Amino acid sequence: MPPVFDITARDGAARAGLIHTAHGVVRTPAFVPLATTATVKSLHAAEVAELGYDMVLGNTFHLFIQPGPDLIREMGGLHEFMGWRGAIITDSGGYQVFSMGHGSVAEEIKRRGRWRGGPGGVTPTGRTSMIVSIEEEGVRFRSYTDGAERFMGPEISMDVQAALGSDIALAFDECTPFHVEREYTESSMERTHRWLDRCVSWHREHAPAGQLLYGIVQGGVYENLRARSTAYVAQSGVQGIAIGGSLGQSKEQMREVVGWSLRELPDDPPRHLLGIGDVDDLVHAVGSGIDTFDCATPTRLARHGSALVHDPAKRWRLDLAKGVHRASTEPIDPDCPCPACREHTRGYLHYLIKAGELTAKRLITLHNLTFMEQLMRGMRDAIVVGTFAEHGERVLAGEPVR
Amino acid sequence: MPPVFDITARDGAARAGLIHTAHGVVRTPAFVPLATTATVKSLHAAEVAELGYDMVLGNTFHLFIQPGPDLIREMGGLHEFMGWRGAIITDSGGYQVFSMGHGSVAEEIKRRGRWRGGPGGVTPTGRTSMIVSIEEEGVRFRSYTDGAERFMGPEISMDVQAALGSDIALAFDECTPFHVEREYTESSMERTHRWLDRCVSWHREHAPAGQLLYGIVQGGVYENLRARSTAYVAQSGVQGIAIGGSLGQSKEQMREVVGWSLRELPDDPPRHLLGIGDVDDLVHAVGSGIDTFDCATPTRLARHGSALVHDPAKRWRLDLAKGVHRASTEPIDPDCPCPACREHTRGYLHYLIKAGELTAKRLITLHNLTFMEQLMRGMRDAIVVGTFAEHGERVLAGEPVR
Repeated sequence: MPPVFDITARDGAARAGLIHTAHGVVRTPAFVPLATTATVKSLHAAEVAELGYDMVLGNTFHLFIQPGPDLIREMGGLHEFMGWRGAIITDSGGYQVFSMGHGSVAEEIKRRGRWRGGPGGVTPTGRTSMIVSIEEEGVRFRSYTDGAERFMGPEISMDVQAALGSDIALAFDECTPFHVEREYTESSMERTHRWLDRCVSWHREHAPAGQLLYGIVQGGVYENLRARSTAYVAQSGVQGIAIGGSLGQSKEQMREVVGWSLRELPDDPPRHLLGIGDVDDLVHAVGSGIDTFDCATPTRLARHGSALVHDPAKRWRLDLAKGVHRASTEPIDPDCPCPACREHTRGYLHYLIKAGELTAKRLITLHNLTFMEQLMRGMRDAIVVGTFAEHGERVLAGEPVR
Repeated sequence: MPPVFDITARDGAARAGLIHTAHGVVRTPAFVPLATTATVKSLHAAEVAELGYDMVLGNTFHLFIQPGPDLIREMGGLHEFMGWRGAIITDSGGYQVFSMGHGSVAEEIKRRGRWRGGPGGVTPTGRTSMIVSIEEEGVRFRSYTDGAERFMGPEISMDVQAALGSDIALAFDECTPFHVEREYTESSMERTHRWLDRCVSWHREHAPAGQLLYGIVQGGVYENLRARSTAYVAQSGVQGIAIGGSLGQSKEQMREVVGWSLRELPDDPPRHLLGIGDVDDLVHAVGSGIDTFDCATPTRLARHGSALVHDPAKRWRLDLAKGVHRASTEPIDPDCPCPACREHTRGYLHYLIKAGELTAKRLITLHNLTFMEQLMRGMRDAIVVGTFAEHGERVLAGEPVR
């Protein structure tokens, strides 16, 4: 068996490489689009491949609830089910289960979280947490579809991910948000470490051939907890390492927290940063040595009418729903090769958004995923030729470097 | 200037031909997908062209309300606005204005209509008609967006269609539904004829270069009214003829009514049948000498989860939302070249529908428009080689002839 990860070029702390999976190679640094519900929303699988992506992220929790792992196993696994021939990474379900402490899976744990939840807790919108209890064995929660009590723990998460047949499985973890005290963060982290050991054991016995397992670093915003968690995950026998949990209240704190985790990491395994996708965050994180990323933002922004653009002053976002675009005959970006930019105007997209047309969500999704792919490709190329630092500065300055 | 319509082959009453428009040739017989709101819902314009369509239908009424003709004119016309390089036919707005007698634009006038509307009337769902008054000058109605009183008559309809810059404009008509008495149908038809004359006059003076004008035959389900209307429209100076209004309560009655209209028609002008799109109706109508069709059904069915299939016993429809498809690994149609069939299973589409995913609406829209294009292409080819009668029988028997 070849090594999981070939680092093919280095430039400072940044690395370019190839993750070898059972469904092909993933070129890194890479952004991984979300196929939360077995589809990148509004696109079919072949279109995502045509955009240049090697891997998508499936959601263990959502697919556990609907349509259920048994059906997907019967249909030949998630690749067959959704018609995707590339690699799939599946999150463990932990993030979604615990985000229900916020009251719904839609109110996701944010860096700037306002969590008051936990079992019996109250969510930011005043609803009772959907988590029934957090036990050593796992988590009891109520399903968002029918309110029925369900259970998920490390073995179930691994079993579901085996049914999905993902190329990269993530260990089951508790994802603690920002406003949690150090004491809870520490005991949660230690339980997550015990859950990691159970995931590794289960995976060793039962995993489908070729499936890789990543452990998740927790420890909140506490430097020595992050250091302990990183060390624990690194020695646990996993093939890759993901950085999860609360990364703090600000971009500065996030970079600090990611830095603590990275300082302790071995060089060889691929490194995934969970849930981060802003342009500046990606540039900094690639520069620090992160290899892959997933994030809902590019596709979610698209569905709400915002296109990604080379404009740091506007957080790289162009809100096409704004009236200023009403009669604009400009494309989003004259140099972008996506159909939204090649064939359509800001004025038309503005109108489609206002008219509630699916075509708007789809065209802007195509644009934003084209933008992200070009961003990552540009960073990969810069690492190979040894110009990453300068390239990153130009991206951060808003230059449309590709 | 070349003739508007070249009839290139005949087979019985059926004709194959080429309509020459300012934006290219339309191969007939042709189905015209609805781009009601300046988009074929969930597709961008280049995709519709790739499916093999030469023409789409834009909706004068909807575009009059939103985003308004001034904006579209400012943006360079409807072709530029929506990025469509082929031909566009625009309906006159009459159908939509009068369908508001039913209470909303969504409750469209059906062959099996239950109209109790008109000014001050009550809709089938118990709401008051949005039509304020029908006058010799035109129609006053309330906008469905803000309730404001608006007015549309022949000149405004023509002016809006000029702003849109469509290749084929339709004359403004009152569309009377089934349950209207003969007396009202006759007086409405006569007013529609006077409106037609005003449209022809306006069009002669002000139409954009190359825009063709079609008149609309009315007369409800009354043979001698249809005959009079057809004769009136044929001598009015229009370049093409559309058959509109109530076509009766059953498919048999529809064929009879269409037959009355066709009997009186001159051979030369292209003939459009408004709002008809069931497979059997298309086969019969092409066999009777109709050249083009538009209908919401193929795309609307798709958004509700029904795929078109070669199965007359099920009205050529496969309801993918039904539980029987849950674990099906079959495609909708193994011989169909669309991405829904080439790359995905009925089981996956069923799941996407249940999960409310946009991807389902889009994939089934692609399938249904592929089906319709193949259906029309098959009929075109059969007319050219002189086998239309046999070909039509095979289609009606559910054979997947292409």
